[in-house]
Amino acid sequence: MKYSFRNDYSELCHPAILEALNKARNEQNVGYGLDRHSENAKRLIKEKLESNDCDIHFVTGGTQANASVISHILRPYEAVLACHSGHINVHETGAIEATGHKVYTVPGQDGKLSPKDIEAALTYHQDEHMVKIGLVYISQSTEIGTVYTLDELSTLYEYCKQHNLYLYIDGARLSSGLAASDVKFNMLKDLCDVFYIGGTKIGMLSGEGIVIFHDKLKPYFRYHIKNKGAMLAKGFVVGIQFEAAFKDDLYFKMGQHENELASFLSHELKRLGVPLLSESPTNQIFPIFHKEVVDALREMYEFEIWEPVEDKIAIRFVTSWFTTKEVCQELMEDIKTLIQK
Amino acid sequence: MKYSFRNDYSELCHPAILEALNKARNEQNVGYGLDRHSENAKRLIKEKLESNDCDIHFVTGGTQANASVISHILRPYEAVLACHSGHINVHETGAIEATGHKVYTVPGQDGKLSPKDIEAALTYHQDEHMVKIGLVYISQSTEIGTVYTLDELSTLYEYCKQHNLYLYIDGARLSSGLAASDVKFNMLKDLCDVFYIGGTKIGMLSGEGIVIFHDKLKPYFRYHIKNKGAMLAKGFVVGIQFEAAFKDDLYFKMGQHENELASFLSHELKRLGVPLLSESPTNQIFPIFHKEVVDALREMYEFEIWEPVEDKIAIRFVTSWFTTKEVCQELMEDIKTLIQK
Amino acid sequence: MKYSFRNDYSELCHPAILEALNKARNEQNVGYGLDRHSENAKRLIKEKLESNDCDIHFVTGGTQANASVISHILRPYEAVLACHSGHINVHETGAIEATGHKVYTVPGQDGKLSPKDIEAALTYHQDEHMVKIGLVYISQSTEIGTVYTLDELSTLYEYCKQHNLYLYIDGARLSSGLAASDVKFNMLKDLCDVFYIGGTKIGMLSGEGIVIFHDKLKPYFRYHIKNKGAMLAKGFVVGIQFEAAFKDDLYFKMGQHENELASFLSHELKRLGVPLLSESPTNQIFPIFHKEVVDALREMYEFEIWEPVEDKIAIRFVTSWFTTKEVCQELMEDIKTLIQK
Amino acid sequence: MKYSFRNDYSELCHPAILEALNKARNEQNVGYGLDRHSENAKRLIKEKLESNDCDIHFVTGGTQANASVISHILRPYEAVLACHSGHINVHETGAIEATGHKVYTVPGQDGKLSPKDIEAALTYHQDEHMVKIGLVYISQSTEIGTVYTLDELSTLYEYCKQHNLYLYIDGARLSSGLAASDVKFNMLKDLCDVFYIGGTKIGMLSGEGIVIFHDKLKPYFRYHIKNKGAMLAKGFVVGIQFEAAFKDDLYFKMGQHENELASFLSHELKRLGVPLLSESPTNQIFPIFHKEVVDALREMYEFEIWEPVEDKIAIRFVTSWFTTKEVCQELMEDIKTLIQK
Repeated sequence: MKYSFRNDYSELCHPAILEALNKARNEQNVGYGLDRHSENAKRLIKEKLESNDCDIHFVTGGTQANASVISHILRPYEAVLACHSGHINVHETGAIEATGHKVYTVPGQDGKLSPKDIEAALTYHQDEHMVKIGLVYISQSTEIGTVYTLDELSTLYEYCKQHNLYLYIDGARLSSGLAASDVKFNMLKDLCDVFYIGGTKIGMLSGEGIVIFHDKLKPYFRYHIKNKGAMLAKGFVVGIQFEAAFKDDLYFKMGQHENELASFLSHELKRLGVPLLSESPTNQIFPIFHKEVVDALREMYEFEIWEPVEDKIAIRFVTSWFTTKEVCQELMEDIKTLIQK
Repeated sequence: MKYSFRNDYSELCHPAILEALNKARNEQNVGYGLDRHSENAKRLIKEKLESNDCDIHFVTGGTQANASVISHILRPYEAVLACHSGHINVHETGAIEATGHKVYTVPGQDGKLSPKDIEAALTYHQDEHMVKIGLVYISQSTEIGTVYTLDELSTLYEYCKQHNLYLYIDGARLSSGLAASDVKFNMLKDLCDVFYIGGTKIGMLSGEGIVIFHDKLKPYFRYHIKNKGAMLAKGFVVGIQFEAAFKDDLYFKMGQHENELASFLSHELKRLGVPLLSESPTNQIFPIFHKEVVDALREMYEFEIWEPVEDKIAIRFVTSWFTTKEVCQELMEDIKTLIQK
Repeated sequence: MKYSFRNDYSELCHPAILEALNKARNEQNVGYGLDRHSENAKRLIKEKLESNDCDIHFVTGGTQANASVISHILRPYEAVLACHSGHINVHETGAIEATGHKVYTVPGQDGKLSPKDIEAALTYHQDEHMVKIGLVYISQSTEIGTVYTLDELSTLYEYCKQHNLYLYIDGARLSSGLAASDVKFNMLKDLCDVFYIGGTKIGMLSGEGIVIFHDKLKPYFRYHIKNKGAMLAKGFVVGIQFEAAFKDDLYFKMGQHENELASFLSHELKRLGVPLLSESPTNQIFPIFHKEVVDALREMYEFEIWEPVEDKIAIRFVTSWFTTKEVCQELMEDIKTLIQK
Repeated sequence: MKYSFRNDYSELCHPAILEALNKARNEQNVGYGLDRHSENAKRLIKEKLESNDCDIHFVTGGTQANASVISHILRPYEAVLACHSGHINVHETGAIEATGHKVYTVPGQDGKLSPKDIEAALTYHQDEHMVKIGLVYISQSTEIGTVYTLDELSTLYEYCKQHNLYLYIDGARLSSGLAASDVKFNMLKDLCDVFYIGGTKIGMLSGEGIVIFHDKLKPYFRYHIKNKGAMLAKGFVVGIQFEAAFKDDLYFKMGQHENELASFLSHELKRLGVPLLSESPTNQIFPIFHKEVVDALREMYEFEIWEPVEDKIAIRFVTSWFTTKEVCQELMEDIKTLIQK
């Protein structure tokens, strides 16, 4: 196998992050995220957010982050609104429902929600015989690689605030999302109530940083993550990684890098006349090939089979901080050879 | 501060484990624990268990392991039986109850349960107006540093099987427990239905290995850990660590090391006439000092204040794989000086 | 207000049931459903089912019945499959999710599921990153007044058994459903794993009788309903009502009565040229009127506004055991007058 | 069998309540507790409470009331504090834990909690590794027949308010408790945040009235009881009963009646030299007999075996609204004969 484009969490971690871990090999740190690395990481993140008025908590994985945040925000009879394609709806094996809450979904457009979608959901849920929508869940970038523009996100958050709904952004692929849209990191404080900074999918061993802006949601969140099994004894292991990621803008550069390579692939594929399932500006792209080409590619590369498109097949290539221009060029050469047979 | 004896999870990880991680820096691995490192780690563990007839799953933390296992075993109306001092009862912020189950506790003796304790619990719970005890939870070593002997554990498991109760061993400090008792790793297959191999508290960045012996508990456990937010995207990060820990018996040697140093401290303290709260053969010891001594020690070392004992104070020293003979000797010198003032 | 066609639970209870309650006024009975009335009611039901091989449990309401049964059947990572229109999906304020389980829905046809719908759901849920469909939930009659035919239900159950899925029938309006279809009460033992006999919506003060056929689901169900708050101290109050309802076929006659009146209304409405939203053979019918007619009708009768249909409005009339031919005739006279204006 | 002293929910309902139900036999009422009977019942209750500033909700049973109230009040990481003997701890099959919350218990004295007990619990729970005590649960009268005095209850509530704890009173046997203590119904508004008026154990078919005083707990409680399966379609059935119970002080008279008979029994038993397990001023008394007497009594009467007391046995007699002086006298005659053998 030449290379895996299966996802962006196939590799250990970025060299700078590994170096930071190695450097701490002889330290002793207090547990549960109260160490100086975690403190320093939070300070660096707040600087980039240009906000001191937020609470930051590190946990290990995205499902943990989502389950902890959502069940922290909602009352028992409240539901979270998401797109059909939302990660919490599709790919968390009922982890949100396991905390007692319905995930109410609407189709959305291109993996995104608009005020109109929310309005439809609110209109539908009228009385105490139905759940109360308490929270809107979106992802940036989305599960299918698209991004909210600043205008879209502002409008959405404005609508949420007017309707007493919290807005939560799943940032599993935030770095790529930031690099691909006009929504910048320091704007997030005005665009949502809570979000998380994905680490696992952008060059960390594991680790997500939950950022809480809304004052009502801040108290007792440490109790809540412990209650949900999301509090790490060795919190400093995640703290050290975030410290390294937010030094010298590494976190942002990794997203740029993976988008550039994905953009190179998109561009080259289009040049070869290969159709794409969607116009994705981020690190996931979805070319459509004949079955024979897919089969031949699978002998050389790993990737996800996405879905059948008429008599062809859409597949997914994901680029990561680890992916190189060389391997992308080699992939394109191989594709060119295959489709010209 | 000279040194922290606060706990056994203050340091990053054992050099051999860090080395294994470094070595994998340029690899690509499939996600979710299906990689070859995880497979190899499982193979090594099964060899040491002398059992092929078990399923092994890696998760990140002890609370996750406990919540996943316990809610996997129990039906909604069933409870888990534990000692008052059991970690799930005291120090998990209601994480077990958050999965819907009562933790029913009895006092136990020295942090341990006996068949008599279980019998009392079963006698008390007689009909459908009370929970049904479905599972017995114990820890080896226990939360207060004691261990079950082979005889005690055999008797307990026999009793559980006769009464249709599952037995689950929390092995957060299993390495130390194994080194201190006649219960050996390869005997565990005959002594419980499920246990977990603690990694976080014995030289790993994080990671616990759940071992399921009972056939009824094997199916769909991967679904269950995903549902509980305990499935890691980069499962190989834990797999690599367990692979390193179970090569050359490192996992077992670390427990021996920390027990030896704890035993050195116990012995020296007794020689100085310092009373101990309990007779612990493992890596936690509980000396009792005058407040003045405790205050002076706190200027030099970190440790937990355990509980008042009449006009004195019991504190806790924990040794780890990282602790050296030198630092223990220095501690003893400092104590000697303080108590002779 | 002349009369309420709003629903079938606006009246106390059928005279024969009230009489049975009055008769028991000076009795003493043991609690929790272990009394002789409950026993006798179960015996009568089993006779009608022509099955001794089932367990019967009485609870107070439909949401309780659904939550108790569904959470009894499913493992934590499992979901229940239902129609979009399923009561558990729409009108139980997240009560199923509150027990930890996802309600996965498909559109269905006419409020009903077919094997094709289930197949689509099974195909979609492929691995441990998604919930496992463990149970299929249907209603007879459905939430929109339709019924499964014997052929449809047999095929559905056969499909479920082949795919290791439990089938559960919500019988909130079972009496009406039985009277309208070729699925008879004594056939149910071969058509599902569990169902409940709705009482609240057919002439009882309150009370639903859960019937469990599948042996695996029988043990410890009393524990489970107590755990879900569904066990009544005065279980005999429900037992007495079911005893009366299953003497002299009252339960079945009430459904026939309400269907006959609904059918009379449908027929007369059609004669007047009033369109119906659906072809419902049961006690719910959905005529479509101009807004002015609806407004005028609301001055005289109570009913639910169902949904807009182009420039008109569909409303719902529900007949009950309490409804008389006379009141239906009067309603039709009033409608005739209104639409001929 | 001459008579059952087993409990106070062995009989249908008080004649006045049955009459009220009979009277409503030809009515139509709106569902879900929004009918005029429920409204009128609430008005009558508020009059007796001398408070308009409370919300009242009717549900069917005590476990439902407890689970709904407690899970409404607590955040996921919070626990409810109760006595070991508390009904929610012992006799609800884990229904509170099923909503995700730990029931943390302390021994208490005579089935009651004091500020000292709460203080001990608060001191014990110090940080985010342990649950946060958010609510104190007590019963009036208690599970063992004792009552809080006005002084005790005032002190307790004062303590709760000072420590940001909610206080909830389980009033399953409130009528008897009110008749036996100096805590009067109209004082409750100043003595707790929420309580429920038990109906099932005092002459109703079933039904409990939850009264919420604390403003923060009022919003969305109807959503919450629906979510917990506790909202009745035919809410008016409970409304009618409470309406009857709160007309002419019937609710209070029934408690007085049962206390008087229990007091008669206590007094007579003492005169005969029969020891009592506790000094209960309410409708539960616990005489201690030789096994032979108990066996002989069981041939004539039903009652609960409570617990062994040395070589004798404590049993429980419960009087109800249904119990007559005559049957009590007959019981005493039979006891006299038996113990004088």
